[in-house]
Amino acid sequence: MTSFSIRRSALFFTLLLSSCLAWGQSSRHQVKDSVILKKIYEEALAHGEAYDNLRSLTKGIGHRLSGSPQAAAAVEWGRQLMEDYGFDTVYLQPVMVPHWVRGGEDKARIVGSSKVGDMDVDVIALGNTVGTGQGGITAPLVEVQDFEELKKLGKKTVEGKIVFFNRPMDPKHVTTFTAYSGAVDQRGSGPAEAAKLGAVGVVVRSMHVGHDDVPHTGSTRYQDEVKPIPAVAISTEDADLLSSLMQNDEKVSFHMETHGRMMGEKLSYNVIGEIRGTEKPQEIIVVSGHLDSWDVGEGAHDDGAGVVHAVEVLRIMKKLDIQPKHTIRAVMYMNEENGLRGGREYARVAKEKGEVHIAAMESDSGGFTPLGFSIDGSPRHVVKMQSWADLFIPYQVFLFVPGYGGADIGPLKEQGVPLIGYRPDSQRYFDYHHTAADVFEAVDDRELHKGAATMTAMIYLIDKYGL
Amino acid sequence: MTSFSIRRSALFFTLLLSSCLAWGQSSRHQVKDSVILKKIYEEALAHGEAYDNLRSLTKGIGHRLSGSPQAAAAVEWGRQLMEDYGFDTVYLQPVMVPHWVRGGEDKARIVGSSKVGDMDVDVIALGNTVGTGQGGITAPLVEVQDFEELKKLGKKTVEGKIVFFNRPMDPKHVTTFTAYSGAVDQRGSGPAEAAKLGAVGVVVRSMHVGHDDVPHTGSTRYQDEVKPIPAVAISTEDADLLSSLMQNDEKVSFHMETHGRMMGEKLSYNVIGEIRGTEKPQEIIVVSGHLDSWDVGEGAHDDGAGVVHAVEVLRIMKKLDIQPKHTIRAVMYMNEENGLRGGREYARVAKEKGEVHIAAMESDSGGFTPLGFSIDGSPRHVVKMQSWADLFIPYQVFLFVPGYGGADIGPLKEQGVPLIGYRPDSQRYFDYHHTAADVFEAVDDRELHKGAATMTAMIYLIDKYGL
Repeated sequence: MTSFSIRRSALFFTLLLSSCLAWGQSSRHQVKDSVILKKIYEEALAHGEAYDNLRSLTKGIGHRLSGSPQAAAAVEWGRQLMEDYGFDTVYLQPVMVPHWVRGGEDKARIVGSSKVGDMDVDVIALGNTVGTGQGGITAPLVEVQDFEELKKLGKKTVEGKIVFFNRPMDPKHVTTFTAYSGAVDQRGSGPAEAAKLGAVGVVVRSMHVGHDDVPHTGSTRYQDEVKPIPAVAISTEDADLLSSLMQNDEKVSFHMETHGRMMGEKLSYNVIGEIRGTEKPQEIIVVSGHLDSWDVGEGAHDDGAGVVHAVEVLRIMKKLDIQPKHTIRAVMYMNEENGLRGGREYARVAKEKGEVHIAAMESDSGGFTPLGFSIDGSPRHVVKMQSWADLFIPYQVFLFVPGYGGADIGPLKEQGVPLIGYRPDSQRYFDYHHTAADVFEAVDDRELHKGAATMTAMIYLIDKYGL
Repeated sequence: MTSFSIRRSALFFTLLLSSCLAWGQSSRHQVKDSVILKKIYEEALAHGEAYDNLRSLTKGIGHRLSGSPQAAAAVEWGRQLMEDYGFDTVYLQPVMVPHWVRGGEDKARIVGSSKVGDMDVDVIALGNTVGTGQGGITAPLVEVQDFEELKKLGKKTVEGKIVFFNRPMDPKHVTTFTAYSGAVDQRGSGPAEAAKLGAVGVVVRSMHVGHDDVPHTGSTRYQDEVKPIPAVAISTEDADLLSSLMQNDEKVSFHMETHGRMMGEKLSYNVIGEIRGTEKPQEIIVVSGHLDSWDVGEGAHDDGAGVVHAVEVLRIMKKLDIQPKHTIRAVMYMNEENGLRGGREYARVAKEKGEVHIAAMESDSGGFTPLGFSIDGSPRHVVKMQSWADLFIPYQVFLFVPGYGGADIGPLKEQGVPLIGYRPDSQRYFDYHHTAADVFEAVDDRELHKGAATMTAMIYLIDKYGL
């Protein structure tokens, strides 16, 4: 596109606005709100600090799995960042976390293919898994699409084998998280289900909606009654290759060597910072992300973005001298990836203290361009948020729908807290999710900052009008 | 984000839909339309070919400035692609284009700074510019923010100098194209305005909304009455550096050596492919992008994306056996970047032949995730498109607003044709625009394909219901 004269945004949206007035309450107070929202977006887009903060976290510390020294560094990083911003209160909330270590290099090899012979492939051990032991294991493969097919094959076929779960994420879904939900049971429960039938190992097709050569890790859950077996993920391209090699060739085996093990639990922390409310300081609005990440890449989209989003909300409010009526609390949870201990502990302590939460928002879907929010609350909460929709039209933010809140804020639900999921565009999320590719360079500064503005605007409105 | 159960899209949007019924006509025919749109999006997301076609264009041919051998290759590539898809008619429309060549390596150096002495900097000559001649030119610098400041300085200050236009794109604008519109006069008219006052050269701050070390080219327009002077763009980071070095240091000069020159005009082509209409084949709906690019990078977002979008619209309609009533015409224009000859010739021929165009759509804003469309037409056209808005809600496409159509389709406006600009998210566009960074890898497959689906859906609706 070359130079031209685009009409200004104001004009751009006039007609859309006029057909949308039924959506929102159009009254005088909203004129002032529109001025505040403009200031919020301009501050974020022109002077946003979330991107620099993300650089500091990802390049200064890198990945930070629960229990690791890097996770401890990230806790201190988070505390210092919020103290440096001069938030009213900054503190650490202790939480015991599992400490899984990869323990060595993950290796794998396709063995005995009549077409290619033996062939090394990249794999990544799933989080929380046991290792194979030195030297690894080698066993014949059996490929399945789902647990039903696995059970049909039964113990006689599965015993002693390595089970290859190869059902792709369905690319037809518009939201990639929907495609993820439809496939992730293979990673989460596949090793436990295979172990029940006597399998000795598991290979899972990576949770990626497209095709590339990058393996994706993520947590798996063993079950008490079955012996844990080692499990790895293989890239989508190698999954297709492996499957094609297995066609008409029953001799194909798989060799894998992994070294994962659970260490003793470690003391870690949720990192919390607050701006105290002027009218009802005892009533809290949470804005949050999780500080831990997998032990590959830099945890930039997952969930460095969410952590710097949360801090940026408070920074912008302070910078614009927006004095909230309720206490606005930024929370960096620990251990979302392989235990959710931080989110659970936060909710337990909140209940114990009798804290009142007006709402809890989480950003854990990446630092991409904002679409809006999904609300896990009552229809009343959804309607309330939709009543503010017209204020967001100039910012091309349109999504205010019932839906998922977030993993870390989930435990607050039983206390009746409405949960709000920040929803950026999801198309690119699984290009990076739980991989070595989830690095700072994969995040765009303007997309990140526009997201922070969108979250700040919503927190401002909730604080002003309740939910 | 770890595993969880997201409610399916259908549920997601129920509430939004119910508050939006006023937006659209909710009638039985739209139930069928919603089925067609679902098929269109599923075809694009699961079996889209635009991304592979873009790879073929960008990696097989690369950049393709008008008049270059690569542009000729791109014409043949476009024709073969559409012939291979079996479109009803595929033909070339001759058009004479300017042929500018860079002619050698662009070089520049900051000279005589009291802080850093002499220092090489990366620059890129602006398109259509004259060269400095072998050995280059060296002259003192004068920095200005706009033409008003330039004129105030006047001939006495400007004569014999190199003018440094350094007004940034304003990052506060939500749409980066609005920021572009507010700054691009410096590149488009800066050299001519500076030459009027006797300047010997121009350095322009690159058209980038953020900060990086990549210089951006783009066209400039000399004026008949003034002698053309050489002009280069400098990266935003180096522009800031240069400006800071010039503070309190009047000795800073600039050396630049460029070799651009205009060769004789060359014969080239717009590439056109059609699906003939079943009821009114003589009435045409255009869907288009431009085939030429600047001579750096691979012209992936600008505008390989638009070209493969246009072809994908016809491919999807054919694949789904959607037989349009009107003729759907994919047009790959030549010479958008430095002459607009293709767009002008297309309109001239259309007028000469008395062709009737129902609408013309252009994709020339990159291959990013779709927001919707802007319409350069009458209020009736805008209202008509908005009446279909509810059909797009499941696909998170929300933007149907009055606004810019496109450069190449612009010349059709005087024939009363409503112009439709495809609007993807613009946050990342100027990270790549007119630079070596605009390569295939900068495009995401799902974002590109979701855009193609969105365009196909809109073309389908225009064909069915008129505009």
